[in-house]
Amino acid sequence: MKKILSDKVINRLTLYHSILTDYIEKNIEYISSPQIADLLHMDNTQVRKDIALLNYKGKCKVGYRARELKILIEETLKFKKVKTAFIVGAGNLGMALAKYDNFEAYGFKISALFDNSPLKIGLKVNDKEVFHLNELADLAKKLDVKIAILTVPRAYAQQVTDFLVDCGIKYIWNFTPCVLRVKNDIQVWNENLIGNFLQFTVNHGVEDK
Amino acid sequence: MKKILSDKVINRLTLYHSILTDYIEKNIEYISSPQIADLLHMDNTQVRKDIALLNYKGKCKVGYRARELKILIEETLKFKKVKTAFIVGAGNLGMALAKYDNFEAYGFKISALFDNSPLKIGLKVNDKEVFHLNELADLAKKLDVKIAILTVPRAYAQQVTDFLVDCGIKYIWNFTPCVLRVKNDIQVWNENLIGNFLQFTVNHGVEDK
Repeated sequence: MKKILSDKVINRLTLYHSILTDYIEKNIEYISSPQIADLLHMDNTQVRKDIALLNYKGKCKVGYRARELKILIEETLKFKKVKTAFIVGAGNLGMALAKYDNFEAYGFKISALFDNSPLKIGLKVNDKEVFHLNELADLAKKLDVKIAILTVPRAYAQQVTDFLVDCGIKYIWNFTPCVLRVKNDIQVWNENLIGNFLQFTVNHGVEDK
Repeated sequence: MKKILSDKVINRLTLYHSILTDYIEKNIEYISSPQIADLLHMDNTQVRKDIALLNYKGKCKVGYRARELKILIEETLKFKKVKTAFIVGAGNLGMALAKYDNFEAYGFKISALFDNSPLKIGLKVNDKEVFHLNELADLAKKLDVKIAILTVPRAYAQQVTDFLVDCGIKYIWNFTPCVLRVKNDIQVWNENLIGNFLQFTVNHGVEDK
């Protein structure tokens, strides 16, 4: 698969994957595009289009083989390629993400957390240790980690980002509400919760009060 | 503005808004599209296009007036219309979202949290109280709340969803990794962290190991 899938398609494929996992757990062998569409309240032609992108065709009248389709999505989205990341900021959000076991099934491994609060250093969350930020550069080198998930408070976001870049971090998944200033060779992915919320309310019809 | 903005445009507008807030805090009066584009590592024609959708034009050579553009984005995305929501599940993620003060600036008010653990009932997080789930129906009616942010563990997601719908909740912002089964008159917005992460790694070039 060299074709580039749009962000929206990737997003939907992961939702289909989640539905397929559920079906397989329940020992259901086949799933149809209307069944998927129905669960997501979307149009079933869209589901068929997305799955056609994977060059996969269902069986007439019975639908897709759940196991096959699941594996195909995993291959397409490269779940098997393990990516290791640090969580930077061991507050509630950092802790929540460290506990989010689901990440590993998708090839995403959190190997450690970092904070500067003495109260947090040495804690273990879901078998992952919280280290002092001072140790980040060293551990990033040793473990060959280039991805950081940034969950520090807003006020420290830029300062910690500069520090991460100095430590050799190349990819930042930014959960802070700040736009970070970084050099062009650093990739930032903004997990824009506010933007996501506003898509929900502006375009998807939350009633006005 | 009756025009429908795409989810991507809404997402970018909130990022521009965050940059504008930063500029205004620093008493900088004007901002240019290349300055915005540079901070987000994107193309400046895209920035200009997005802002043109708001029917707003910058001043030649100096750019946009930061304050004006900020207000225009706020009006377009309806920040002034307050939407009240409950957080359901007072674990780390629920707590993190309750502490996320930034929401209020965008018209989003969390009025209470709910859980079923006796250890959590009565706690206060950022001035918001944690109530037992049993009280949700009653409080939803009293406070006219129709939005729930779902942050319970995966295993309880569907069961709690059914309960929320019975309580009169109409909109669910789903932070669990489950696809929820709901009737057609209930809107679910999946905060698909895995999907977002995979967009980042599959399309935005996280190096293979």
